Amino acid sequence: MTQQAGAGGDTSADNLDSSGGKTIAPEPYRLEAVSGPLSPDELATMDAWWRAANYLSVGQIYLMSNPLLREPLRPEHIKPRLLGHFGTVPGLNLIWAHANRAIRERDLNAVFVAGPGHGGPGPNACGWLEGTYSELYSDIPQDAEGMGALFAQFSFPGGVPSHCAPETPGSFHEGGELGYSLLHAFGAALDHPDLTVFCVIGDGEAETGPLAGSWHANKFLSPARDGAVIPILALNEYKIANPTILARIPEAELASLLRGYGYEPIMVTGKDPATVHQAMAAATDDCLDQIARIQRSARDGGNGTRPTWPMIVLRTPKGWTCPPIVDGNPVEGTFRAHQVPLPAARTDDAHREVLEQWLRSYRPDELFDATGRPVPVLREQAPVGDRRMSANPVTNGGSAIRDLRLPDWRDCGVEVPAPGQVKHEATRVLGGWLREVTRDNPDNFLTFAPDELASNRLQDILEVTGRDWQAEIGEFDVDLDRGGRVIEVLSEHMCQGLLEGYLLTGRHGVFTCYEAFIHIVDAMFNQHAKWLDASAKVSWRRPIPSLNYLLSSHVWRQDHNGFTHQDPGFLDVVLNKSPEVVRVYLPPDANTLLSTYDHCLRSRHYVNVVVAGKQPQESWLSVPDAAAILRDRLPELKVRVVNVVDLMRLLPDTEHPHGLPDSEFDTLFTRDRPVIFAFHGYPWLVHRLTYRRTNHSELHVRGYKEKGTTTTPFDMVMLNDLDRYHLVMDVIDRVPTLRERAAGLRQEMVDARWTARLWTREHGADIPAVADWSWPGD
Amino acid sequence: MTQQAGAGGDTSADNLDSSGGKTIAPEPYRLEAVSGPLSPDELATMDAWWRAANYLSVGQIYLMSNPLLREPLRPEHIKPRLLGHFGTVPGLNLIWAHANRAIRERDLNAVFVAGPGHGGPGPNACGWLEGTYSELYSDIPQDAEGMGALFAQFSFPGGVPSHCAPETPGSFHEGGELGYSLLHAFGAALDHPDLTVFCVIGDGEAETGPLAGSWHANKFLSPARDGAVIPILALNEYKIANPTILARIPEAELASLLRGYGYEPIMVTGKDPATVHQAMAAATDDCLDQIARIQRSARDGGNGTRPTWPMIVLRTPKGWTCPPIVDGNPVEGTFRAHQVPLPAARTDDAHREVLEQWLRSYRPDELFDATGRPVPVLREQAPVGDRRMSANPVTNGGSAIRDLRLPDWRDCGVEVPAPGQVKHEATRVLGGWLREVTRDNPDNFLTFAPDELASNRLQDILEVTGRDWQAEIGEFDVDLDRGGRVIEVLSEHMCQGLLEGYLLTGRHGVFTCYEAFIHIVDAMFNQHAKWLDASAKVSWRRPIPSLNYLLSSHVWRQDHNGFTHQDPGFLDVVLNKSPEVVRVYLPPDANTLLSTYDHCLRSRHYVNVVVAGKQPQESWLSVPDAAAILRDRLPELKVRVVNVVDLMRLLPDTEHPHGLPDSEFDTLFTRDRPVIFAFHGYPWLVHRLTYRRTNHSELHVRGYKEKGTTTTPFDMVMLNDLDRYHLVMDVIDRVPTLRERAAGLRQEMVDARWTARLWTREHGADIPAVADWSWPGD
Repeated sequence: MTQQAGAGGDTSADNLDSSGGKTIAPEPYRLEAVSGPLSPDELATMDAWWRAANYLSVGQIYLMSNPLLREPLRPEHIKPRLLGHFGTVPGLNLIWAHANRAIRERDLNAVFVAGPGHGGPGPNACGWLEGTYSELYSDIPQDAEGMGALFAQFSFPGGVPSHCAPETPGSFHEGGELGYSLLHAFGAALDHPDLTVFCVIGDGEAETGPLAGSWHANKFLSPARDGAVIPILALNEYKIANPTILARIPEAELASLLRGYGYEPIMVTGKDPATVHQAMAAATDDCLDQIARIQRSARDGGNGTRPTWPMIVLRTPKGWTCPPIVDGNPVEGTFRAHQVPLPAARTDDAHREVLEQWLRSYRPDELFDATGRPVPVLREQAPVGDRRMSANPVTNGGSAIRDLRLPDWRDCGVEVPAPGQVKHEATRVLGGWLREVTRDNPDNFLTFAPDELASNRLQDILEVTGRDWQAEIGEFDVDLDRGGRVIEVLSEHMCQGLLEGYLLTGRHGVFTCYEAFIHIVDAMFNQHAKWLDASAKVSWRRPIPSLNYLLSSHVWRQDHNGFTHQDPGFLDVVLNKSPEVVRVYLPPDANTLLSTYDHCLRSRHYVNVVVAGKQPQESWLSVPDAAAILRDRLPELKVRVVNVVDLMRLLPDTEHPHGLPDSEFDTLFTRDRPVIFAFHGYPWLVHRLTYRRTNHSELHVRGYKEKGTTTTPFDMVMLNDLDRYHLVMDVIDRVPTLRERAAGLRQEMVDARWTARLWTREHGADIPAVADWSWPGD
Repeated sequence: MTQQAGAGGDTSADNLDSSGGKTIAPEPYRLEAVSGPLSPDELATMDAWWRAANYLSVGQIYLMSNPLLREPLRPEHIKPRLLGHFGTVPGLNLIWAHANRAIRERDLNAVFVAGPGHGGPGPNACGWLEGTYSELYSDIPQDAEGMGALFAQFSFPGGVPSHCAPETPGSFHEGGELGYSLLHAFGAALDHPDLTVFCVIGDGEAETGPLAGSWHANKFLSPARDGAVIPILALNEYKIANPTILARIPEAELASLLRGYGYEPIMVTGKDPATVHQAMAAATDDCLDQIARIQRSARDGGNGTRPTWPMIVLRTPKGWTCPPIVDGNPVEGTFRAHQVPLPAARTDDAHREVLEQWLRSYRPDELFDATGRPVPVLREQAPVGDRRMSANPVTNGGSAIRDLRLPDWRDCGVEVPAPGQVKHEATRVLGGWLREVTRDNPDNFLTFAPDELASNRLQDILEVTGRDWQAEIGEFDVDLDRGGRVIEVLSEHMCQGLLEGYLLTGRHGVFTCYEAFIHIVDAMFNQHAKWLDASAKVSWRRPIPSLNYLLSSHVWRQDHNGFTHQDPGFLDVVLNKSPEVVRVYLPPDANTLLSTYDHCLRSRHYVNVVVAGKQPQESWLSVPDAAAILRDRLPELKVRVVNVVDLMRLLPDTEHPHGLPDSEFDTLFTRDRPVIFAFHGYPWLVHRLTYRRTNHSELHVRGYKEKGTTTTPFDMVMLNDLDRYHLVMDVIDRVPTLRERAAGLRQEMVDARWTARLWTREHGADIPAVADWSWPGD
């Protein structure tokens, strides 16, 4: 611990009177004269702004009315349920204040990412002080009434959440699930050469795997092409109920860790406001000076070596400026300050009295005029217009979109002289088109992959660009490029998070992944879908480009890699989200895949999940094969093959905008004929989508089921219900009139299945009858 | 790059003849005399063992027959489809060989974790050399025939996967999805004071978020209570198609990173086998000496400070010892050696010829006798019996279980004088029982939580133990303990991975988490369920303790935290796994939760998902309330309330062992009466489970649907279909004979619902009619 002694409320144990369960208010502080980059006047005005933001934050947490304390606090002024986490808020407000000074002085184009959870009061307060809140929400003007409304709505029925959310001006990062702040920050900086992202990372969040891995995103940030990220590790030492790891290792070890990640940390430590203000001002200046040098050097030609980027470690007390003692327990600077320092403020007179003293310790009468408006010296500290971080257009990504230039997909399509006669690797064909998209949109479109771009057969993109790589380049490394338009890193979290940050700030992209391992980002997908859904209901938010997945190496072609690589369940996760924002496509061939992807890249505000095969195949399931056998051997049997490309068509039109009306569904699938549904994923998903359809009782779904068979690579043909032999048997079994007549064919299928299995087990490859089969033509 | 020059095949660019697309075999190497801890004889025998393991690995990848090259290689000896990744294998084999030397010399109790993907040939080869393979698989004896079978089965139909799997002797870690090796290693070491875990981490795997975060697991490893982990970062510099980040930062930066994580790295770098052997032997000795000192000091009382644990960075060429040039391209030491260095060995004569030379470069005739058995000097290098890492009992966790001592849950149950008369926080009651379980099983049971133990109301456990914490302890930190039985870290990945490692090596535990954020480990759950499923089919594996989740702070009680904290979809993910291994329970009250958990902790080889409320409630949904209103107001209406605690009961008995037979289902739910199903999760999940039931068309499911409403905390009562008012309306609407008669009651419900909503919006709390309602009694 290296906390510096300071003038503001010392909470060291010796000074605490914890006898008798006392509750003690913080003493109003006066700024000491501390030398540093800030003149005494600047120091005073910045501190005033910080006090104002802190006052407005405490107000949001506690007050339903009496926002300016024009009368003594009474129980009915205080919310019955106290929410929001104060612990992290003073740090957020401090960083915002210092970012604002830099924006004004340097005319910076900057945005703010608040990583710590439930810190919403901070950015809300800053947005209101900057006037943005009132511009976007006319019911929350910049006066006493507006302040009251700002307070009352916070984490209140009908109001705004306790963390940063789509409702928060200037936020493109949801503070609900922790771990993604740095990825969103780096994603925003890509292809935005003039942007500076102030990214606050909570020391709790820093324990998550995704955050721990994401420090390495600096290996993909080009100082020539991209903007800058200033990571600010907010080391207030506590989570909900525990200290944090990074706060409980020696400072030298922490610095070593951050240097190992490729940053030069600047330590800002203390609890005396004047001391911290001066140190933070110096650190912010230092970071921005270093960044300017790095960018200038790189943009002047540079030598291509990866720079060491600066960052800040801000170690200040949890709940800084809150009551030091509550009910005899130390609070400021401990885990007890994480959430609400005075939990009984409505019902306990002592708590309420201390709450009022606490609020008054910020000296609100100096900060707000008679109408409740921030005094001029505060208003003047806000940057102007779009320069305000609460109003930066890229944070409302949909307002900053440049449309993609999309080449005609038909020019990249494959010739199909007759149905089923030509085999193509569908994703390789798509790669050819994505190459053109990449070429035509050199600063507006990126492809992300966890070391699977080539494995998923999209490598044609590399004909026009390399893989982005800012680290060293070895003698035998190929296809790396300091400004490459493909980002490959063996972390699904990083691919997803960087792409999200890129999309949320108005650009376009694709994430290609093995189907089984996309589950790694289930939670991130969930949160992004929720952001889309919720932001669509915020009037001033504009639709952003869709998040486009290309899942390949899918369950039916992972026979060689086995059971661990087989999992089509992402679709189940996706379909739980609001139908307004999710789309699922299963294009069966190369041209359909192209057309589907063209549609996806033009769309807005969806998550588009496209599952497609990379193996040469006229169609990735065995339905056409089975149909051909039936047509040949039982010509009197009428078989209809329906390809369901858009899975949402199966839903009733009352449940999803793509849903088929019942009458059309019945026309396609009949009201009473047996339907064998050969499905890509877990079979019950189709039942969940169709259980209301007329003919549901005759719908028999064949799909993937978990059977614990790691031991049988290649045995797909025998282990699933989707091989041609099984499907033919299935049809025969389902049509009563066929059972006797087609008994011979059925037995033939049983025998062929066993023959195929035995052949495969002996030879380690598919039997030629399976491998070389082609559609016999119409 | 700091690779040392060496005698073995130099692949630096100057020496490469890449003209004419040549394919060049590696030159057989002779060991140089290099000084170090190994005597010349030791060096020679260890190298022989390494060559043998490498030979057996190449054989697995390529050969279907002719395992000892007793005749020239012909196309039919070679598998048609070449799988498995050679690139990482020589490193794995080297580490195994050096671990064996240490085991023999120090009588170590050690296990091996192979993190790199698809490196299965290495541990398979080592297990066969140690004789374990033949003991467990009688069809794979330690002779020429067995060698042939070992080769033929690898990644072949009916055989074993290309990565470590349940079939692999000595493995308790699946090599399918990357990122969890270090967590499994640390989990295995917890409460195993005598165990040493050699954990190999691929530099590809090291890019994943979960792995990046898991280095900090050393903050929870007690040198007194637990065993040791030796992380060995296998820095072979390449993934499938890209260099790795950690290989392309300066070595000093890498060392800084690892020191920042709390380790002192020992660098072992080179490509000359003798040099690397000596360096690796010295590094292994150094690590084990340091560990012995650390443990002795801690166990002699120590001073409680966290030690700096040693680790190894092994930088050797990718595909070390493989052909340097294939088709004119550099292969050894490049990304092209990642998978199969000679992809056309079956069809291309030059490839096949070089394959034979490559195999012979290991000098198999010196390694295997006339019968194909390893020569005595190799056999003597294997440790004896259980000391073999391939045979260590803890790696077959089910064989090492000590049953839990479980106190009678009834002693911790709550008094229920009459149904519905008492409210309890169900999880707090469970915490009381888990406190007893923790006390009674002081070295065999752990609880994991991502900073949510107290938030989920299990804090009573802390009455008998602290939270495990090996880092510094601050002045205001509470409940921390150098040997605590609760592990809290703000990483769901770490909680899950450490618990998995603990269970896989035969101990017991619980993971408690917010319901919404358990999606963060969807992929880890999937892989663990697959391990359970697949290992149940391996005859020598014994069932391990179940993985027990306690999910609380669930969707219906996250009104204050809002939309981001609401997601009941983990159940959908769980139900996609094999019915043999997953169980889902929704106990409605405290005593049922206790009884359920008692059942779970006694069970084996399942994943038990228990979702339970932490808020005071007689039942966590509104069904009893609605039933009470109906009983009071419409006494002639017969209403049956069925609590479905075990969700699997809904499935037909043909689909799940817990499934209800149709007749019993019909008895409970009738064949034709309307059923209103008030469900915890997404409603379609119930349809997916029940679509085959007689009365499915009359089953109306009410559950959670995504509505994008971040803005309305507390508004649960109006936003879902599960409030009492809605349920009463629902019943009225579903029973035609009631519609007219009960129109008044229906309108009353509509009005009450609006009144409740308006009251909540005004007051920020539930209306007393809702908050204070209690069951009127029978």
